[in-house]
Amino acid sequence: MIETRLTRRFGIDAPVLCAPMALATGGRLAAAVTRAGGLGLIGGGYCDAGWIAREFDAAGNTSVGCGFITWKLREKLQETPGLLDQVLARKPAAVFLSFGDPTPFAAAIRAAGVPLICQVQTLADAKLAAGAGADVIVAQGTEAGGHGEKRATLTLVPEVADWLAVHAPDTLLLAAGGIGDGRGLAAALMLGADGVLVGSRFWASAESLAAPGMTDAAIAASGDDTIRSSVMDAARGLSWPGRFTARVLKNPVTERWHDDPQGLVAHAGEIAADWKAGWDAGDPSRANTFVGEAAGLIHDRPPAGEILTAMMSEAEALLGGGWRGAVT
Amino acid sequence: MIETRLTRRFGIDAPVLCAPMALATGGRLAAAVTRAGGLGLIGGGYCDAGWIAREFDAAGNTSVGCGFITWKLREKLQETPGLLDQVLARKPAAVFLSFGDPTPFAAAIRAAGVPLICQVQTLADAKLAAGAGADVIVAQGTEAGGHGEKRATLTLVPEVADWLAVHAPDTLLLAAGGIGDGRGLAAALMLGADGVLVGSRFWASAESLAAPGMTDAAIAASGDDTIRSSVMDAARGLSWPGRFTARVLKNPVTERWHDDPQGLVAHAGEIAADWKAGWDAGDPSRANTFVGEAAGLIHDRPPAGEILTAMMSEAEALLGGGWRGAVT
Ligand SMILES: Cc1cc2nc3c(=O)[nH]c(=O)nc-3n(C[C@H](O)[C@H](O)[C@H](O)COP(=O)(O)O)c2cc1C
Ligand SMILES: Cc1cc2nc3c(=O)[nH]c(=O)nc-3n(C[C@H](O)[C@H](O)[C@H](O)COP(=O)(O)O)c2cc1C
Repeated sequence: MIETRLTRRFGIDAPVLCAPMALATGGRLAAAVTRAGGLGLIGGGYCDAGWIAREFDAAGNTSVGCGFITWKLREKLQETPGLLDQVLARKPAAVFLSFGDPTPFAAAIRAAGVPLICQVQTLADAKLAAGAGADVIVAQGTEAGGHGEKRATLTLVPEVADWLAVHAPDTLLLAAGGIGDGRGLAAALMLGADGVLVGSRFWASAESLAAPGMTDAAIAASGDDTIRSSVMDAARGLSWPGRFTARVLKNPVTERWHDDPQGLVAHAGEIAADWKAGWDAGDPSRANTFVGEAAGLIHDRPPAGEILTAMMSEAEALLGGGWRGAVT
Repeated sequence: MIETRLTRRFGIDAPVLCAPMALATGGRLAAAVTRAGGLGLIGGGYCDAGWIAREFDAAGNTSVGCGFITWKLREKLQETPGLLDQVLARKPAAVFLSFGDPTPFAAAIRAAGVPLICQVQTLADAKLAAGAGADVIVAQGTEAGGHGEKRATLTLVPEVADWLAVHAPDTLLLAAGGIGDGRGLAAALMLGADGVLVGSRFWASAESLAAPGMTDAAIAASGDDTIRSSVMDAARGLSWPGRFTARVLKNPVTERWHDDPQGLVAHAGEIAADWKAGWDAGDPSRANTFVGEAAGLIHDRPPAGEILTAMMSEAEALLGGGWRGAVT
């Protein structure tokens, strides 16, 4: 076992959280990660109240948290004002916010006694999250699957760690982006993190809601085959703030439109229809596979518990001196 | 001390190379890193034979290597066919090639009995370098200062490590990009690297040729303040292959032109003149400061030997169990 401030604070055995991946981390996956010793977060991303309720039910009695896309939550609360309270009433292990200013939601979450986890993409975001009273900050690097920004995990984590050490020493810090096995977990701990948030690797698990055609494409891919792009959001008509792009596998859609945003707008209707049909069919050549550079470290789709167990043993061995060298 | 295949192969005490930074790693800096226990590489980048000869002289009897920008070497050998042989005649500790196919130069380097180090930006590049017979492959992530590409160190290193383990197990692997202190070094070793190549951190050292105005700007900056761009190469009229951009501090030049490549071309003459004047004056607001995301980890400009010693003690402590947690 690996004990850190994260495992102590949340009463878990492994310093590993399963990312709240929209449309991928349902209750079964989140619960499987919790049962294996980590903590799973349901991917409430686009804030569909019915979907979220169903997935909390699917998690059963197992303790899980829930994630929201912050700018979407803000929008959604206009039409469904009770959404956040519904989730808080479930007594989630944590609420996770990413992609936008968490400040407007922090008070309600803290008042409910629920830990607030904020994912950030820059040092500036980390300062904002700490100011909002985040209990845990997740520093997400550009290698991550799904939405994110430009900074890399390897520098963002220690830079945020240094800032927190001075300004918010009780705030925990997790690393996210590119962690696909025990090597990444051990590296994150060396960088000063209290644990990690893992997306792509759990996305390719037996319990994930990801389409088999998509996970097969990721299994066949190298990290070289991914790209950060806004093409998919434009195709889906999602109004993501411009600073956030999504990492996906390149396919004919990104190859054609990534460098032609004006053409994309001009053909938006047909592209959107075909992209949606491709997504519904789970076809990675027509819709894009949301996965990070860690695709190059993913070679199978086993149960999430096996992924976590293997990641932990590999990290424990490395931390115990099993790396290729020695301090003499 | 940290012993790895790299320290044994090169007979050095620390698994740390100083990157061959064009216009920054002269003979004094390279020699200082070697004398402190690592290995320094002169930044022969743009292949000016007179500059390279002078900097080898400045290194004196201390063993150093030399780096070239591969596509530039290819061009330059048309007009100065003896350039590579001149460097090989110096019996360098290694020749380092980055940014282009190393294959045409590998035979001459190996025939001289000089180790060939190839820096790569993708898994595909790593396969090419291994095929060319590289003794050492440096996996460079996008967080790096100076030229580079899109993949991040945290995923590129383990993915290349897995490939080498099967196809070229005797080829050493170093991590580059974002390593600014002992945390980064320890993390790289966890990822499966035999050592690291450090640029930005040594660029901000007493022995570096970098302008004080530029290193002061980096000391004041966060990693958030950097950008990968082609604006500087366009301004300088350098014909870099399109896949390679350079990481620099954002300044009014990149803010104005980064998203307006057509305008940049239209105003190329004036921009070039002003950029060059800014560069010659060491003015970070008119020319760009070449530095990586590790800028956020750089707070001073001490002697290179002190940087290396501090990096090593911090990594040794972490590898010895001094991280914030425990395997139980
Ligand atoms: C398929 C997929 C969907 C994602 N959806 C969300 C989301 O809805 N909300 C969110 O905060 N992060 C989302 N992320 C990003 C994760 O929170 C996390 O930062 C990322 O997965 C970590 O990098 P990794 O994929 O390399 O493990 C998603 C990631 C993936 C791969
Ligand atoms: C100022 C500067 C100049 C550089 N010049 C070169 C160069 O001429 N040739 C080269 O192969 N790499 C060059 N690089 C990249 C380094 O080889 C190395 O990949 C990089 O510095 C590692 O990342 P770091 O800066 O985060 O340590 C340069 C880097 C910097 C910061």
